[in-house]
This record gives sequence, structure tokens and C-alpha cells, in this order.
Amino acid sequence: MSGSIFGNIFRVTTWGESHGLALGAVIDGCPAGLLLDESDIQKMLDRRRPGTSKYTTARKEADSCEILSGVFEGKTTGTPISVMVRNTDQRSRDYSAIAHVYRPGHADYTYQEKYGIRDYRGGGRSSGRETIGRVIGGAVAEKILSELGINVIAYTSSIGDIKIDKFDPEYLPSDPLGMPDKDASDKAQEYLKKCMADLDSAGGVIECRISGAPAGLGEPVFDKLESELAKAVMSIGAVKGFEAGDGFSVSKSRGSTDNDPFYMDGDRVKKSSNHSGGMLGGMSDGSDIIIRAAVKPTPSISKQQETVSDHGTDETIEIKGRHDPVIVPRAVVVVESMAAITVADMLLRNMSSKLDSLREFYK
Amino acid sequence: MSGSIFGNIFRVTTWGESHGLALGAVIDGCPAGLLLDESDIQKMLDRRRPGTSKYTTARKEADSCEILSGVFEGKTTGTPISVMVRNTDQRSRDYSAIAHVYRPGHADYTYQEKYGIRDYRGGGRSSGRETIGRVIGGAVAEKILSELGINVIAYTSSIGDIKIDKFDPEYLPSDPLGMPDKDASDKAQEYLKKCMADLDSAGGVIECRISGAPAGLGEPVFDKLESELAKAVMSIGAVKGFEAGDGFSVSKSRGSTDNDPFYMDGDRVKKSSNHSGGMLGGMSDGSDIIIRAAVKPTPSISKQQETVSDHGTDETIEIKGRHDPVIVPRAVVVVESMAAITVADMLLRNMSSKLDSLREFYK
Amino acid sequence: MSGSIFGNIFRVTTWGESHGLALGAVIDGCPAGLLLDESDIQKMLDRRRPGTSKYTTARKEADSCEILSGVFEGKTTGTPISVMVRNTDQRSRDYSAIAHVYRPGHADYTYQEKYGIRDYRGGGRSSGRETIGRVIGGAVAEKILSELGINVIAYTSSIGDIKIDKFDPEYLPSDPLGMPDKDASDKAQEYLKKCMADLDSAGGVIECRISGAPAGLGEPVFDKLESELAKAVMSIGAVKGFEAGDGFSVSKSRGSTDNDPFYMDGDRVKKSSNHSGGMLGGMSDGSDIIIRAAVKPTPSISKQQETVSDHGTDETIEIKGRHDPVIVPRAVVVVESMAAITVADMLLRNMSSKLDSLREFYK
Amino acid sequence: MSGSIFGNIFRVTTWGESHGLALGAVIDGCPAGLLLDESDIQKMLDRRRPGTSKYTTARKEADSCEILSGVFEGKTTGTPISVMVRNTDQRSRDYSAIAHVYRPGHADYTYQEKYGIRDYRGGGRSSGRETIGRVIGGAVAEKILSELGINVIAYTSSIGDIKIDKFDPEYLPSDPLGMPDKDASDKAQEYLKKCMADLDSAGGVIECRISGAPAGLGEPVFDKLESELAKAVMSIGAVKGFEAGDGFSVSKSRGSTDNDPFYMDGDRVKKSSNHSGGMLGGMSDGSDIIIRAAVKPTPSISKQQETVSDHGTDETIEIKGRHDPVIVPRAVVVVESMAAITVADMLLRNMSSKLDSLREFYK
Repeated sequence: MSGSIFGNIFRVTTWGESHGLALGAVIDGCPAGLLLDESDIQKMLDRRRPGTSKYTTARKEADSCEILSGVFEGKTTGTPISVMVRNTDQRSRDYSAIAHVYRPGHADYTYQEKYGIRDYRGGGRSSGRETIGRVIGGAVAEKILSELGINVIAYTSSIGDIKIDKFDPEYLPSDPLGMPDKDASDKAQEYLKKCMADLDSAGGVIECRISGAPAGLGEPVFDKLESELAKAVMSIGAVKGFEAGDGFSVSKSRGSTDNDPFYMDGDRVKKSSNHSGGMLGGMSDGSDIIIRAAVKPTPSISKQQETVSDHGTDETIEIKGRHDPVIVPRAVVVVESMAAITVADMLLRNMSSKLDSLREFYK
Repeated sequence: MSGSIFGNIFRVTTWGESHGLALGAVIDGCPAGLLLDESDIQKMLDRRRPGTSKYTTARKEADSCEILSGVFEGKTTGTPISVMVRNTDQRSRDYSAIAHVYRPGHADYTYQEKYGIRDYRGGGRSSGRETIGRVIGGAVAEKILSELGINVIAYTSSIGDIKIDKFDPEYLPSDPLGMPDKDASDKAQEYLKKCMADLDSAGGVIECRISGAPAGLGEPVFDKLESELAKAVMSIGAVKGFEAGDGFSVSKSRGSTDNDPFYMDGDRVKKSSNHSGGMLGGMSDGSDIIIRAAVKPTPSISKQQETVSDHGTDETIEIKGRHDPVIVPRAVVVVESMAAITVADMLLRNMSSKLDSLREFYK
Repeated sequence: MSGSIFGNIFRVTTWGESHGLALGAVIDGCPAGLLLDESDIQKMLDRRRPGTSKYTTARKEADSCEILSGVFEGKTTGTPISVMVRNTDQRSRDYSAIAHVYRPGHADYTYQEKYGIRDYRGGGRSSGRETIGRVIGGAVAEKILSELGINVIAYTSSIGDIKIDKFDPEYLPSDPLGMPDKDASDKAQEYLKKCMADLDSAGGVIECRISGAPAGLGEPVFDKLESELAKAVMSIGAVKGFEAGDGFSVSKSRGSTDNDPFYMDGDRVKKSSNHSGGMLGGMSDGSDIIIRAAVKPTPSISKQQETVSDHGTDETIEIKGRHDPVIVPRAVVVVESMAAITVADMLLRNMSSKLDSLREFYK
Repeated sequence: MSGSIFGNIFRVTTWGESHGLALGAVIDGCPAGLLLDESDIQKMLDRRRPGTSKYTTARKEADSCEILSGVFEGKTTGTPISVMVRNTDQRSRDYSAIAHVYRPGHADYTYQEKYGIRDYRGGGRSSGRETIGRVIGGAVAEKILSELGINVIAYTSSIGDIKIDKFDPEYLPSDPLGMPDKDASDKAQEYLKKCMADLDSAGGVIECRISGAPAGLGEPVFDKLESELAKAVMSIGAVKGFEAGDGFSVSKSRGSTDNDPFYMDGDRVKKSSNHSGGMLGGMSDGSDIIIRAAVKPTPSISKQQETVSDHGTDETIEIKGRHDPVIVPRAVVVVESMAAITVADMLLRNMSSKLDSLREFYK
């Protein structure tokens, strides 16, 4: 069954392969009347573009986007928004080394098993370039959220053993690793240089914070905000773990600590702590929504590895070319995008929860 | 929007509140010809039933199930399977203490915000009793999986700081905490007694292992096996974290370690390690599928807590009655159920991946 | 794939077989705060109950419904509403005449081909009793619509050659055929008596009118109001045709006639005719929405028919027992229900069309 | 909610406006291994292209398609197939006559009401050019069906009062009105010339026949083959009626006539008539599947019409330019496409109906 469509009302369909002609997304269900132009999307795409620092692949792609439909006189019309990015770096290559060998840690083997065929050029659809469609969707979603005073921000919270100790929003945009802490970033860069010298790669953790969201987003039982965010984030290649709020550390906590006390702040209900990560019973509780994604080390490494071919022989492989020694920095905007898409969809889904809202809307 | 339906082909709709007349599930899309009777479901329900050990609530419920449709002469017919469990322990209670006060760590506040109304009797739909419907669905799913040689087993891997050191399948069924390691369980029980003495509660981690699944399950891009499992498991109340394979520890790993080497075992492709948890590119790779869920401490504790009322006053609350001091043991079968439902659905979704399969099917 | 779930936000899951223990429906996505009790549903169920006139089967069923969840203190809570009707007329019968023979015009053969098994007792899931679940859903949907000033009414517009000439709303409820025209009904009853004397059955047409709906309901391109209504109505057993507005007669019309002129009535846009049946471009235009369903003659007839057995022999069959000589009168409330469910769902889907609506809702 | 995605496993997302940069479709869920190139799609697109006869608009569009993803080395890979058609005839026009006036019979008013904004250039998304995306999806679907020996063919069965009397497959491709009967077509052309002379337009009926489909396609209860086909066809602009098999004439038939007798033809079950149109109980019965669509007269006519402006004044309008005097001939391939998409989707959905099929597939 098709797995390239995400969302229920705000729905994002993505398409495209690493070395195909183009990649893109179609956003259906975007409310009409949103100011939108290519620059809104381009600035998000630029954050995931390759070649922006020494810790990313040298592939040169402008990744310049074109809005093909759904916008008229600068505003969305409610009809599908189709956005395309042409691939430009498609010089012919020699794929003979990987065309018939399964790269460890990659999707080569599973694609072949599932479909009986795979586009081996740069990983085809399983390439990180697939995330262009997600970022397009995320850019539109963030535009909606910003209209409602909701802010989404993702950043690198750890690489290897090195964790951030502070959150410096001024510094963040300039950090090559997406870390909001210069000291931690410096240490992480040392660690990455060592990994690169070892022909190896590193992993890390991305954190995302959504502030300004109203209480009540999320649809019990199965479509809780937490479960939809988990699906969204775990669908990003290389993500192997997901946390909401205190995440795995809740297992060592106690109820008296983990429960966030409520108090009145004027006529508003607030919490004096946020162990829940802004979600209770799977619905937003008005506090900041906080999630984390664990990202595995780049599977493409230059070190020699044991593997097999698609005709059943044992092989060794050394993956040539320059690859991102760490996926994390470029995945930051992808996590942010998936979070934004999910929250936008849940905002729309939430509108019909109360009969009173229908009465108000249709009066 | 409705959030009580899970799955795409194998679809489970659950319904019911803690203190309503009954709870149940409707399973649509179950293949015809499966041997099924109440005992298949009852034995799963018995694993989540309250009152089975000193670490679970004393509420007495037989939780006895009735199949109302979809089975004829002992076999499923392809039509919806409706299964119901009547609530029997519905003696009238005094809810005045919680009817207008939001219990910290619970969904009271968020339900009120979203719907403008909530069934305060025992948490209504946000109660753990909601999982009866999940277990019904899981029982049917596991029956399908067992027909295909696929086995799903979940167990407690940690409570508080205490982790299992071994996996003893013989011992597991008799352990009151769902741990496959008697030594660890003994320590965990000591810890739980201490929590109970402190009028407090504990959290833990549940692990689930699916063995015998073919390679290729999961639908890229958004509906990867990992992302569907994440959604399934994160939708269970009190779960705050999800891992596949090495999970969060991948962030500290390196590519050369994290990549699982392939090798040929006769004519079969195998992996010499399983850091990936049986999934590559979001599709099963033929190894055991391994996932974990972090479960927060029971939010209902007898200790005094700060909170607010639904008319905007600060309050303190002490939650009366006896509650599970830890949710983990009873949630084990729920995690197993959600994993089984997800894998069953992905098995059905996978059948149309190749044109050759259509040709074979329709020849 | 499962086909027993209808709708996108307001979602109705139905279950149950003709001679199983019970039938029912689960309504997910109903807005919270709707006054609802069993009598709201029962009065709709009573309209489809057998045994109410000489033109319906003599099977005796109270068809009395029980609300099992989703309502608290007389109001919907936003959680799934589960409603069940127990089968009471389940005396053991002799099915040997039809257990292995395919009844012409019925679903026996196709169920057997699809599922390899079928519940031959009274048609199992393909029985008209399946519509109990639809009427349950319809009753809840009509309750929502009535809160918004939207009225849905269905009636028999023709039986055989006899068409209604007028619409008498006072008379309608008392007519045994669901016709709003006593003269036409009298003629139709004569025709039916003749069919019955011939051991034969008759067909007819049901019309449904939805008034008071706002303009803009329906989601272009594929989920137009017309297409969703068509799916809804064509999914009712025995319906073989669907029309919106002028329906098939548009094929003989001209643009200058078929186009409904607009005019201003104060500050409201109105149309001076309604050939479109209240829908333009697949969205409601503010006029009455008018649809029609063609219902085939009851396939169960006492006349001898040629058929085959499920072991591949030619057979003749005479279907014993008393059957409705015409399905139309009892199907009227089913068409009305499916229309109401569809409109309710489209009302909810429509709420997020404009960014301004989001701004208003979340301010 | 988004309405531009059709299907459950084989899913078609369409996008694009009449006077935007481009139109297209993304097909997700197409099985891997299908031979596909642009010519497969182009030949279908050419059948709906404007300017091919005097009965179609004079707008000049090459409507040349480009496959952007999902095909590798000539075969589908199982990943989304993105296909785009650039608009070339975008010379600037004077829209002042229609920018603020609602054309009768068009979607101008309803789009404005729903979205608060509309792309008035050529009808935007409500234009017939929207069907380009449907035909792209239909071309891929027909390619799958042809691999399985299933044939889909649509044709004009009537225009105005003139009905076809025979089916001449040799003649059909050359007929300017899509009629398989030269005599009827000649008469219809006379009728159309008269309509054109009157500055008016005509309607008609399209019939579609699907042969070679196996029994058992269609998912009871709501997702019957008939109901999915009804939704598919009624979603095409200007279609106001749908019939399966005998359609509305069943209302005048009797059970003894309408029921199709079964008989054995060797070891195959056959029917000696086909009043059911190849569907029983909503599932295909192995006979030819026959459906019909009623198409209204082109709403764009040169005759003067009464209407209103979007600022609330009564207006008259004469729609300039040359328009198709009848939509039917160009809609034939669109009906065929929607039927093919639906049947392809139902073929994939049907594969998991029996447990035995799973056992066979996963052994």
C-alpha cells in the first residue's frame, strides 16, 4: 500500500528519487487565504541543503523550488499546492560498485526484497534527498502555525556523548551542527573530525520544541498527539528512537515527581513543571510540546564492511565518495518539518470536537 | 476527528469507558478462514485483568468477552468481528472528590479543554480499561500471525533502575511483573514495595520481540514499519518513549558498529548483528524485530498533590482507593497487542507490492 | 480491505449478521455536547423494522437498541458511541435448501468467491438487516443536523411505473409505502398485490431532500458532496442507480435550461431554479440538496428460478418463507440515514477550509 | 479536508489549475515491475485533448506529459509516480467579465463561499483541465489491468435524445463524439450543430464496460465495487447521474426478470443475463461490469444569462470565446480512467480477503 502520503486533513504527498529528474510534494487540505510564495519554502530547503559546511556531503544542489499550483495572487486557494525541486547534479556515475551489493545499514536489501527491483542510484527513494518533500510540507505547515502564534524549533541536542548545556537562540542559526551551545558544538566538531579520520560516522539526538499551541490538540485513542508525532518523526530515515517530555527517563521516575502540578495563573491553568512534554492523555496541555529523535550514525562509511551481493555471494564493500559524517545537522529541519506538519494537521482535526463549535461556525 | 480506529486494511475500532456499560472492539478486514473463538481472546484479556497480583489494582472485573459477529462455524468470514466485554464492577461511588478537580498526570484537564465535557467516572475513555479493545484486536492479530509462523512476545525489561539480565521464557509466565528474570523481578518487587510504602508509584520499560516475520514489511516513506509501530505503541496511555533496535544508544554509536554486516547462510541473507532491530529503511529485514516502550509511573498516587479545579481554584488532592503502583506489568500485553495489530496490518498491506504477485494471485 | 467503515471525521463502523447474536454500529468523531438517548435512535430504527405492514416480511424483531458508550449524563462526550441491537428471532431453521445453492440476484456467489466461506443463514452480512448499523449512524447524524437547522427527509417517489404527483408531508408518515401521495400509494399497493400474487417482487425509486444546508459543503476534486452521497447511497444493497438534481434527464437538457440563474434576495444569493439539485462543482450551493436512488426488486421470490450449487451443479430454487415484495419502503430510512451521515461528515470536513476560520477558532 | 486524493492502496493525488503553470498527478501504491513510459500516458491524454474536432474548444494545448519519478529502467519501482503536464496556452487574457460574476451552472459561487477566494482564470481547479490528473492515473491503472487481462472501454451512449443502437468497435476510435454507431453519431452531430446555432449546449450519457475482471472485487459493506465506482464517476465535473447494470430501469422491473439465472459452463459459474451489470452484493460476479454516467450540458454558453456578482448585484452575462458545445466526447476517457483507477484499487484491496491467500503468499 502506498506510504507516501501523510496526514488526515492537511495531507502531504511526497515523491522523487535521489537521482531522478526531480523531487516534490503536493499539499492537499491547506486552508485558503494563507500568504505563500517560494521564498517561504526556499528558506527551509536551504537549511537541509548539502554542501553548507565541512560536515555535510559535497554534492552540489541548488535545491531551488517552484510552486506549480494552489497559489493565486500570493495566497493559497484551498486547492492542492504542488511544489517541485529539479535535480541538477545528475552527472553520470559509475554505480557498478553498489548496483548489486547491499550496503550495510541501508535499505538496499529490504527494497529489493519488497519490490523485486530497486533504483540503486544514490539510494533512489530511500535517499536522504527524499526529505525535500517533507521540508516543503513543513514550510507550508510552519507558515500556518506562525499565523496562529505557534512556533516550532528543532536543534541538535547531542552528538555522540556530547550534550548541549544551554540554549542560545542567537547563536543557533550560525552553528554548523545545529547546536544552540557553542562550547558543546566545538567539542562535537572535535569528535566528528576524529570519526572522519577513522573513516567512520557519528550519531546524535535532535530535540524539537513547539510553543504557543492551545490545549486539546490530539485525538484519543489511537491518534494522540504523541502517537502522531512519533509516527511522523520515526518515519524519517535513520531515526531509531522517539521521546516525548521526559521520555525514557520516566521509567526511573516516581509518580510524585513525574506528575506536573497544576496551578492557577490568573484565570489560566498552568503547570509548575513540564515532565509530560506538553501532552497529557495524548492531547496538548498548553505547555511547550517537547520531543526528541535519536539519529543513527550515517551508514555510508569508507571503512571496509562485510556484506553480500544480490546474487547471493559474500562481498566486502568500501563506500566511495564523500558522505555526511553525521546526519544530525541536516536532519534538524526535517524533524522540525514533520513536527510542524503533524501539529498543523491536528489543529485542523481538532476544530470539530465540540457541537458548540459547529453551532458557532454555521450560525 | 475520530481517533478510535487503527490500521489500514486490518482495522480495529475500539470503544467504551471505564465505568460505562461495556467496552469492546470491532475488527474489520480480518481475512476469512481463521479459526477463532472466545478462548483465543479471553486468554489475552486475562493477562491484563486487574486483581491478579498485589501490584495491581484490587478492582474485580471478570472481563469476560463475547464474540457478537464475524465468526461462523468457528471461522472468521471476512466480515467485521465485534467483541464486547461488559463492565461488572459498577457499584455507585462517590466521585465528588475528582468530578471537578484535575488529577495531575491524568487526561482530565485536556479532555475538558478539548470536548468541554468529560466522563469523570474512573477517567472515562482515558482509563486503562480502554486497552481492553486493543487486547481484543491484538488477540485476533496474533492468531493470524501464528498461522504464518510469526511470534510476538512482550515482557518487562526494567522497573525503576532494575533491568533484566537474562531472558528465561519458562519463568516468564509466572512472574507477577512480567519479567523474564527472577532475580531482577525480586529486586523490582522490593523497589515497588518501597514506592507503595511512600504512597508513590514507579515506571519501567517494556520490550517486545517479533520473530519469524518476512523481510519487506513496511511502506516507505511515511508508513515505515518503524513509524507505524511507533504510532501504535506511543498511543498507549502512559508511554512516553519508543525505541527500535538500539534506540537512543545509536546516538553514541558509530557507523562501523551500528551497521549490521550481511552474510550468506546457504541461500539466505542474514545479518551477523541486529543493531537495527530488524528494520532497515523502515522495512523488516528478516531479523527479529525489537522495540521498546518507556512507561511513566502511575499518575494516581495517594500522596497529596497540588492541582486546580475546573472552576479555576487552586486545590490539593489525595487520590483515594487502591491503584496499580506500577502500570508496566499490565501494559505488557497491551504493547504486545499493538505490535501484533501493526504487523498484521503491514503483512496485508505488503501483498500488492509487486506486479508479479498480482499476476500470480489473479491467474 | 475492510469496507465496514464510512466517513472521514464522522465515522461509522457497522457490524453484524442477519442471524448472528447482534448487530450494531460504532460512531467515532461525533462532536461532544450533543443531547442523545436511545429514543433518538429507536424512532429511526422503528421506521425500518420488519412486520409493520403487509408489504414487509413477517419476521418479528423488536430491534431495540442499547447505547453502550459515548454518552454521559445525556450528552455525547466526543468518544465513540457504541450502539447494539440484539437479534431475538433466532429460532433454528432449516437452511439446507439454500446452504449450498446460490440465490439469483443475491450476494451468495460473490461472497463465496471472495472469502471462500459464507454465512448462509439469512444472507449473513449481505442481509438487509445490515442496514441497522446505518440507521444507528443516521440517527446520530440527523440529531447533529437538526441542531444546525438542517433537515433530511426521504420518501418513496415511485414503485414500478407509479410515480408520486405531489408531496403531502402530513400524510407521509402514515403511508405504508413511504409515499407522500395517497393516490399514488393506492395504485402502487394494487401493483404490489399483483406482484405478490405472481410470486414476484417490485422495484422503485427513493428521493431524499436535504434543506437548510449552508453553501460550500463538499471537498473538490474527488470528495465532492455529489460523489460522497453517491458512494453512500450506492453502498446500500439493491440500489443500482443514483441521481443528483435532474439526474439522467440532464442528458436531454440544454445549457440554457439546465443552468440555474442566480439572483439577489436582499443580501443573499439565490437561484431561480434548482436543476443542479443544490450542488455546483460538487459543493452545496445553498438550495435544497436533492438525490434519488433506484432500488431493484427484492431478489428473494417464491417463483422457481434457475441457479447452481456451490459444488458445481445446475439447480432450481424456490425461495420459501415470506419476503418483502418490495424493498423500497423499508429502504427509505436507510437512504435518509446515509444522506445524513454524509452531510454530517462533510459539515465537519468543511470547517477548516479558510485560514480565517482557524484564526477565529484559535484566537 | 483534502479531496484531491483518490483510492486506498492504489492512490492518485491530482493537482493543478486551468491557467496555472502545470497540472499533474502522483500515483502512490502502484505495484513494482510494471513496464511504463510516457507514451502509455500520452495516448490517453491525447483522447481528452482540446481542439481535436469541431465539437471541442479551440484552445490549443499539446498536453505533453513528463514522468518525473517512480520509473527506473522502464519499470515502476513501487515508489510514487509523479507525472506533470505544463500549461502552454497561457497568454494573458481579459478576465474582467467573469472575475467578479458567478457563471450559472459553474462552481464559481460555491468555491467563493467555501474558500473565500477563487482562481477565476478559466475556472481554476474546477476547470475540465483538472481531469488531466485523472487521465494520468487512469493510464497507469489501465496498464496494470491489461497485464491481468482486464479491459476497460468507455464510449458515448447518447447525446440529447439520440441513443446508440449498436456497438461497432472498429468504428469507435474515429468517431468525433466517441460513439460506436455512425448513424447515431451523424444524428447527434446534427443536433449539436443546432445547439451551437442556438448559442446553447447539449448533454449526454457515457457508458463504460469492464471485461475480464475476476469475481469477488469490492469490499462490503460501504466500499462495494458499485459504491466506489459511483463515487469515482460522480466526482467528475458535470456528471449528475450514475447507473450500474440496468440502473434506473430496475425500478420498473420485477424480481423474476431482474435476477440473473446462474448456470454451469463446464466448471465455471456463469449467468444467462446481466441485469446486475456484473455486480452482486457490491462485488464483481465475473460478468462484464457495466456502468453509465449522465453528463449535463456544458454550462458555458454564449446565450445571455441572469446571474449575480460577488459584491451582491444582479447581472447578466454572455460567456465569450468558444467552448465545447458538449462535454461528453472529451469526458469519455475520463470516465474510463476513473473506472480503471477504481478497479485497480479494488484488485489490490481484494488480495487479503482469505487467510489461505496469506499462507500462500508468505510461505
